[in-house]
Amino acid sequence: MHLSRETKRLEGKTPKEDDLTRISSTWIPAGLSGSGKSTVACTLEHALAARGKVTVLLDGDNVRHGLNSNLGFKAEDREENIRRIGEVSKLFAESGVITLTSFISPYRADRAKVRERMAKGDFLEVYMRIPIEICEERDPKGLYKAARAGKIKNFTGIDDPYEEPENPEITLNAKDEEGNMASAEDMAAEIIKYLDSNTYLRGP
Amino acid sequence: MHLSRETKRLEGKTPKEDDLTRISSTWIPAGLSGSGKSTVACTLEHALAARGKVTVLLDGDNVRHGLNSNLGFKAEDREENIRRIGEVSKLFAESGVITLTSFISPYRADRAKVRERMAKGDFLEVYMRIPIEICEERDPKGLYKAARAGKIKNFTGIDDPYEEPENPEITLNAKDEEGNMASAEDMAAEIIKYLDSNTYLRGP
Repeated sequence: MHLSRETKRLEGKTPKEDDLTRISSTWIPAGLSGSGKSTVACTLEHALAARGKVTVLLDGDNVRHGLNSNLGFKAEDREENIRRIGEVSKLFAESGVITLTSFISPYRADRAKVRERMAKGDFLEVYMRIPIEICEERDPKGLYKAARAGKIKNFTGIDDPYEEPENPEITLNAKDEEGNMASAEDMAAEIIKYLDSNTYLRGP
Repeated sequence: MHLSRETKRLEGKTPKEDDLTRISSTWIPAGLSGSGKSTVACTLEHALAARGKVTVLLDGDNVRHGLNSNLGFKAEDREENIRRIGEVSKLFAESGVITLTSFISPYRADRAKVRERMAKGDFLEVYMRIPIEICEERDPKGLYKAARAGKIKNFTGIDDPYEEPENPEITLNAKDEEGNMASAEDMAAEIIKYLDSNTYLRGP
């Protein structure tokens, strides 16, 4: 689902006057398992690359198996998981790389702490408001089924809480106003629209 | 000592054919407190910026107070410190950003583990072979004095071991062949020379 890590190995550029822009660490936290977080993040990454932006996508694949491989899923580990992701995002943002993160990050307090650590405007909370019924019906990895059967413990939305964002910068809904299911492209376009109208992106 | 984080907030670029290059996570681990690691890393960062490269400098300032603020200095914490730095360097390298790290990283095994996790050629070990007598004489932060007085425990080189790199890609000595002290600029130039002759850098 990622841009090939290989093709992204590029020689960066030093800042030039017309390159300067507001850099954000975009955050796609809020979204249950199966809400489509990663698909949207991946689609967004492609769209930003087409606009000439350098991005990094932090997700379970590269963080849970790397930096956070020594963490589990109990509450304190989830807190530490999000704290570390926030700190890494901060390092990337300070280097001029737009960070996209795709994690459940179920607890409000943990997200708030990350926001506090970032420079103002560098943290955007994108809430994927997809009802659990839809996520559970999709269940692409069979995780809900396993959680309902008690084979997975502390599963967000089943036996571990999911605290909805209260004031996310962007909320993405499962359906549009006409009741049609929104595609990942629609959702990524909505994020881009927000970034454009808030002068996060400049240039073509 | 850093490039201003603010001026580094740039809009990155997508890879173009002639931008592609071998990207490395340069590692400046080996160096006792007072060996001049950070000064060399900072000088190197400036030199690379002048060559049009995007870099990130990971050091005590931004890592020990951020991502690794929940770690101390006992052996297992030092190990975890270096492990996390390695994983973050990997994420940066995969995004095309050259990582400079400036940490004591005293244990050989911890450095070897980081090397194993990185793509071949992405990890360069730069050993600052500065005798402890020189470091202790400099003692810019008064840490050796405090360690000798027993006020700081587990201080590398005093009551905690420093394991010299066995096969570092680059070794920087305190003095040149004529016996003159090498400056930070000399040392940075030596690293650049290595990078150039091993085709890590391309372009001007």
